[in-house]
Amino acid sequence: MIKTDTLIIGAGPVGLFCVHQLGIIGLKCEVVDNLDKIGGQCIELYPDKPIYDIPAVPECTGEELTNNLIEQIKAFKTNFHLNERVEEIKKIEKKWITKTNKGTEFESSSIIIAAGVGSFEPRKFSTKEIDKFVGKEILYSIRDKTVFKDKTVCIFGGGDSALDWAIELSSTSKVILVHRRDDFRGMQASIDKIHQLKEEGKIEIYTKYQMDSVQGKDKVESINIKHDDKTIKEIKTDYVLGFFGLIMQLGPIAEWGLNLDKKTVPVNTESFETNKEGIFAIGDICSYPGKLKLILSGFHEGALAARGCFKYAKPDEKYRFEFTTSSKTVKERLGVKE
Amino acid sequence: MIKTDTLIIGAGPVGLFCVHQLGIIGLKCEVVDNLDKIGGQCIELYPDKPIYDIPAVPECTGEELTNNLIEQIKAFKTNFHLNERVEEIKKIEKKWITKTNKGTEFESSSIIIAAGVGSFEPRKFSTKEIDKFVGKEILYSIRDKTVFKDKTVCIFGGGDSALDWAIELSSTSKVILVHRRDDFRGMQASIDKIHQLKEEGKIEIYTKYQMDSVQGKDKVESINIKHDDKTIKEIKTDYVLGFFGLIMQLGPIAEWGLNLDKKTVPVNTESFETNKEGIFAIGDICSYPGKLKLILSGFHEGALAARGCFKYAKPDEKYRFEFTTSSKTVKERLGVKE
Repeated sequence: MIKTDTLIIGAGPVGLFCVHQLGIIGLKCEVVDNLDKIGGQCIELYPDKPIYDIPAVPECTGEELTNNLIEQIKAFKTNFHLNERVEEIKKIEKKWITKTNKGTEFESSSIIIAAGVGSFEPRKFSTKEIDKFVGKEILYSIRDKTVFKDKTVCIFGGGDSALDWAIELSSTSKVILVHRRDDFRGMQASIDKIHQLKEEGKIEIYTKYQMDSVQGKDKVESINIKHDDKTIKEIKTDYVLGFFGLIMQLGPIAEWGLNLDKKTVPVNTESFETNKEGIFAIGDICSYPGKLKLILSGFHEGALAARGCFKYAKPDEKYRFEFTTSSKTVKERLGVKE
Repeated sequence: MIKTDTLIIGAGPVGLFCVHQLGIIGLKCEVVDNLDKIGGQCIELYPDKPIYDIPAVPECTGEELTNNLIEQIKAFKTNFHLNERVEEIKKIEKKWITKTNKGTEFESSSIIIAAGVGSFEPRKFSTKEIDKFVGKEILYSIRDKTVFKDKTVCIFGGGDSALDWAIELSSTSKVILVHRRDDFRGMQASIDKIHQLKEEGKIEIYTKYQMDSVQGKDKVESINIKHDDKTIKEIKTDYVLGFFGLIMQLGPIAEWGLNLDKKTVPVNTESFETNKEGIFAIGDICSYPGKLKLILSGFHEGALAARGCFKYAKPDEKYRFEFTTSSKTVKERLGVKE
């Protein structure tokens, strides 16, 4: 059980700056994120795209923004628990106990949810009654590619993940690539390679087809795919892989008893606390009158939420506002030498 | 009469970033500031002091912050009216008419007050009944030093301004330096020079004395100064200069019919609008539950206030939120070439 003042859920820019604001007022925190690296949407969705509205930073990429924020909080030596998703929270007396999908447990007096619009998850087949096969013969990511050796694998999708895996597996498996459009979205080199493999008879391609149904009792035996012209084709296959990109899901947060409004968490604008005492929400996930989904607003929300956490962490102390330019204590916490 | 969408009062960092937020949503603005340069408190009070809590900027001085913000808004080619103080506002139909002390007039559909904690003004003598001499023989700043030639000048204060002027004027005037403490606060070189001039008989110094009263009918004839031990000394003098540093005054803003709470202007947190329709307040001057006097909060407040101004500037259009990373219109406004 890891004990800390505040648990931050989400290592995007807003969560990172919140580490700073907690740190300068003397609170400790730990950060959990479902992704495998720090930076959130900035790194996952637009690492190279310039952002123009970070105040006093005329232009920066998502990656530069993330690196600057990591630099800004380095004095606090924060622990990041990546590749972990918070599953359960419960309150025991005045503490929140949080548990991740990997079994890590935290005890904190407050929780700040800075989870963007939730966690990234693969977009799924909309076909009904396939749940029993998901994670067995129907997969959205690959952990061990050796299971496909000498098997038939039907890959759905038209982007880089679908093309890359089709190319990769074509040397050891029978690969059938199915895409709902006629043209692929991946890199040109991959598209060329796919067409070459088709000409060489190493993969089969069906375009303008989508998943229609799955047959099989204990395991997948075959699938039906449906053309835009409504004709159905049956394909015998051992595995089905779906690569339709990522979508964002609120995930387990939806189960924590927080008020929800269109997948966001309503908060007050005094401390960005939710309807649950000691649970705060900042950044894209929170909502209040006037809310704009700007990174800079998340920074402000984190600053005020950090002060809101203070009273839970140090109920007997009064928070005293200090400027970073003039406070000796704050400078010591930041590791600044004068 | 200058017509614009929004008039911003205050060219500090918060006012500057607000220019950006108005600009990217397509609104025009003009900026007025009482100081002689852009940057507000950052430049006036701590141009060289490092600031550590601008998000994604681990460390910067007030001057660097200001320069970055000026760079960020250069595409909008904003007019700055410096050395001007807004004196009067009035509403004519749906427009606000604003007038400065220099007679400049603006017509705008909204006003954003980003005036820090008011305008900087010299701290004054607390002595009663000296008003009639202020601006004539009693001065808080010097425009033309030649008027002091061959006259007696009594200088009050213990900081750099007082010492610098005492040194400067000692070559052409009879200088008497009065300070309420025994030690001076100025640079050591200036303090040494003052003591040297005293030894050379070129200036008189009275410490632990404060102003007690001023005598004279049409002009100042003499002043009485009072020692900490209550003894009074009369000094014949032609001029009295007070250099007690700057204080911040709300100034004429206090007369505009805005609700006030301890020298701040209460606002809502949806758009940071005041009790007057179309008048917004952001940064240190505004107050709401949870308010922290952080520059980064002022940035957020400006972003939301800018959207609040939109409906007054374009009552027939609906504001549509766009990200700077992806909006073609926003990039064009920013002058970004793709």
